[in-house]
Amino acid sequence: MATRDSAATKQRILDAATAEFAQYGLAGARVDRIASRADANKQLIYAYFSSKEGLFDAAIEANIARLLDTVPFDADDLPAYAGRLFDFAVAHPQLVRLLRWHQLERPGVLNQLPQTAESNRRKALALTEAQAARKVSEVLPADQLLTLVLALIHGSAETIFGEGTEPVAIERETLITGVRRLITPP
Amino acid sequence: MATRDSAATKQRILDAATAEFAQYGLAGARVDRIASRADANKQLIYAYFSSKEGLFDAAIEANIARLLDTVPFDADDLPAYAGRLFDFAVAHPQLVRLLRWHQLERPGVLNQLPQTAESNRRKALALTEAQAARKVSEVLPADQLLTLVLALIHGSAETIFGEGTEPVAIERETLITGVRRLITPP
Repeated sequence: MATRDSAATKQRILDAATAEFAQYGLAGARVDRIASRADANKQLIYAYFSSKEGLFDAAIEANIARLLDTVPFDADDLPAYAGRLFDFAVAHPQLVRLLRWHQLERPGVLNQLPQTAESNRRKALALTEAQAARKVSEVLPADQLLTLVLALIHGSAETIFGEGTEPVAIERETLITGVRRLITPP
Repeated sequence: MATRDSAATKQRILDAATAEFAQYGLAGARVDRIASRADANKQLIYAYFSSKEGLFDAAIEANIARLLDTVPFDADDLPAYAGRLFDFAVAHPQLVRLLRWHQLERPGVLNQLPQTAESNRRKALALTEAQAARKVSEVLPADQLLTLVLALIHGSAETIFGEGTEPVAIERETLITGVRRLITPP
């Protein structure tokens, strides 16, 4: 019972932290507000997550875990994968903001989180296999091609919300067309 | 003499503001520190720029003006243009951070700045002409293709500094290859 309560409390804290960090970033976030929103005790938050930075990292990890569960990587059909990531970003604009704050305020930390590093390794491996099977162009080594495809998807996320330097929002089909052109074998 | 002094002082304030906002963002920036770094009077900063938000917008505009002067858009050779933007981002990492903070803390404002809106309009027009001349693929309407190319370049900027979700930094030639594949006509 204590364990179940503890898990539920942790989840409430992570949900409240996600909303707070997405809105204000790390420097602007207030642990007081997170505690109040989660109906939890501030001392308990520090007991669970050590520091505001620790809570920020945990919130990012929880959101990325949900993303990885909901939208598994698909090296054999990258255009469709890009479309699903597009849909996820539209449905979860908080994640896009969280990732941007994290890049600015915790630079270099994301790739050191075990979950992210492992996920990147598996993606590159799957893409190497798709290249060997001639499903994906070998114009570039797998790690560079993966970086390129993810850069296009991430860059597009900026424009979904009309916050980029572009006058128009990117359309779902445009992103899919772009990924297809990047990876189609000759 | 007064005019020249005033222009020099404004430039010192904008330089100091660029460094401060790039490091701390809008919420975290301190006008006191900017005044001290620029060897200027805090009241003068408010007289020139009205508010911290006004100073942030002016700093972004000054940096974008320098970017537009240094790296003119080239619809006829987008891969080479992408390479020059890559070089500019490497040489001016502050601009990349400034733009990210601005997206988070002043969402939607960038495209309303007259300079940005006008620059975007001219880019789309030039790309339409390059498509008509069969130098660029017509796979997508000019505004969507432009958004896609800029998304790839912006997304790549994340990984130049190793702050993206990718395990490897994007290479200059990889970005150029990517842009070429997006825009090459059949």
